[in-house]
Amino acid sequence: MKATVYYAPGDVRVENVSDPVIQQPSDAIVRITHACICGSDLWFYRGLDEWKPGWRAGHEWMGVVEDVGTDVSTIKRGDRVLAPFAFSDGTCEFCGKGLQTSCIKGGFWGQTNDGGQAEAVRAPLADGTLVVVPPAVEGDDAMLTAILPLTDVMATGHHAAVSAGTRRGGTVAVIGDGAVGLCGVLAAHRLGAERIIILGRHDKRLELARRFGATDVVTSRSEQAVAAVVEMTSGGVESVLECVGNESSMETAIGITRPGGTIGYVGVPHGSETINLPSMFMSNITLKGGVAPARAYIPELLADVVAGTLDPSPVLDLTVDLEGVPSGYAAMDAREAIKVMVRP
Amino acid sequence: MKATVYYAPGDVRVENVSDPVIQQPSDAIVRITHACICGSDLWFYRGLDEWKPGWRAGHEWMGVVEDVGTDVSTIKRGDRVLAPFAFSDGTCEFCGKGLQTSCIKGGFWGQTNDGGQAEAVRAPLADGTLVVVPPAVEGDDAMLTAILPLTDVMATGHHAAVSAGTRRGGTVAVIGDGAVGLCGVLAAHRLGAERIIILGRHDKRLELARRFGATDVVTSRSEQAVAAVVEMTSGGVESVLECVGNESSMETAIGITRPGGTIGYVGVPHGSETINLPSMFMSNITLKGGVAPARAYIPELLADVVAGTLDPSPVLDLTVDLEGVPSGYAAMDAREAIKVMVRP
Repeated sequence: MKATVYYAPGDVRVENVSDPVIQQPSDAIVRITHACICGSDLWFYRGLDEWKPGWRAGHEWMGVVEDVGTDVSTIKRGDRVLAPFAFSDGTCEFCGKGLQTSCIKGGFWGQTNDGGQAEAVRAPLADGTLVVVPPAVEGDDAMLTAILPLTDVMATGHHAAVSAGTRRGGTVAVIGDGAVGLCGVLAAHRLGAERIIILGRHDKRLELARRFGATDVVTSRSEQAVAAVVEMTSGGVESVLECVGNESSMETAIGITRPGGTIGYVGVPHGSETINLPSMFMSNITLKGGVAPARAYIPELLADVVAGTLDPSPVLDLTVDLEGVPSGYAAMDAREAIKVMVRP
Repeated sequence: MKATVYYAPGDVRVENVSDPVIQQPSDAIVRITHACICGSDLWFYRGLDEWKPGWRAGHEWMGVVEDVGTDVSTIKRGDRVLAPFAFSDGTCEFCGKGLQTSCIKGGFWGQTNDGGQAEAVRAPLADGTLVVVPPAVEGDDAMLTAILPLTDVMATGHHAAVSAGTRRGGTVAVIGDGAVGLCGVLAAHRLGAERIIILGRHDKRLELARRFGATDVVTSRSEQAVAAVVEMTSGGVESVLECVGNESSMETAIGITRPGGTIGYVGVPHGSETINLPSMFMSNITLKGGVAPARAYIPELLADVVAGTLDPSPVLDLTVDLEGVPSGYAAMDAREAIKVMVRP
């Protein structure tokens, strides 16, 4: 089969690899119908994460089950399934707490595991990991596209909103107008935030943010952005969704958080190890979040998508086939696309 | 009157200053009967905080009201009152939320305000700040000494325990065997933690920690301490009280926190701006806390002290008179005393 393989920064290729086969009784083999390229894939694509040549890519995918191991009991051949970006056994202490990203047997797609930017994957821990898509939506392309972002960015935006303590009628600020930030807006709106301020720079994305529920847009940066948000909220925002993950975005997050407020941080930290802890300390600002336990959130988000009340699909603004994956990376790297959908 | 005045690192003096007088209708004048020297006073004493010659010191005090301004309605002459280390109006948004340290009119004792290591102070915002000590305990020296730590260290240890999400039957770890760490142990015990692991280095203090409720003691440091705690808890502790405030203690805190757990941090950050955010991120570790809103906690803690169920007074292991304040600083600086009580 064909799969996306990392070679070097700026160099991913779609090439023939061995077909996946059941290796463990808890495995499933899934034929991929939909996958994505993630903003976090750009870290290795840009040479900022240490990746090894030969590693697989793609941690956001949906497909149809082709085979299951002998221990798999909740998933069967022919099921359409959705995978969170981490796999997990569903039975350990952390899975029980809804923190499947810390599953003691779990892991992440790609690298030395199969990746979703491929024709098929071997999915370990299938019972704990995969979520069955209701058969009623089969054939509804728009609906399937709306479900796909639950694998990562919509769950991650939701995690930011939940971690930040978003409350009905409250005010939130979302830092970043990438796919996660946009999904953060959607999540905050879904959770009932009345005022949603987005901080970003790209007109098209900010326009989408407004469609998703943003009430205010701040396009300035750093100190100017902080001053603007503090002024428009008379002292800062209770719930801040940090959806970027660099030092400057974290500094902005701390600057705009109201005393006693919370930063829900989901941007993978790259260079954000130095943070203004004295400022956080004096204002009792909480930092909560991390890698999103998408598996915990998918059932409730999926129900809303299927019910037609949630639709993150507009973040997928470019579609490629499997051969088009390298050009999809290039388009995201150049910010020509917010997020790329792959249809193998 | 006499008051403690900062001159230079290692040089604090007790000298004559003007008597405090009512300046605002919300002021009270309080004759100090008890005060403390705080671990955080050592920061300026050691030249690590930028203090100016002439600034006053002492943010932990109790005394008897001598005079009140015309607007003061809840405090009267002759009342024995306790002051949290920050003053606050009691009426603003943040005071209403129990975050009096962020009061929009508030401030901290010492520096350009009066300090408690003195014969008397002018207390601004008396109604919002001061808490009346029940008259029944008057004359009970042991009781008054047990109440004194509520001004700061006991409230701060409690803030660490609350921020860390200490729960009945749960496991906590306390980093630091200073007065705040010891009070953190007491607070965690009071909140029902079943297992309390203290990380410290000083035999006498660790012995006191055991009296306060610590069940386990770890005396190693850094990676060794992390390995020990992770092993004894099979993977880390849900609630970690970070009561030191330097980079190494924060690194230890992150290392011993169980995935999904919370660090309650109350050590004033000095050099802890660089933190291991990627580790926190991957394990969804929450950082919560900051400067303790002692005013919010004093009523419930005071009730327990008066009821005889809470007694943090053993942290006060050296008593000096006002003239002895400089020697008290020296004793704390040399770690000959955990915490010094001043009896003007």
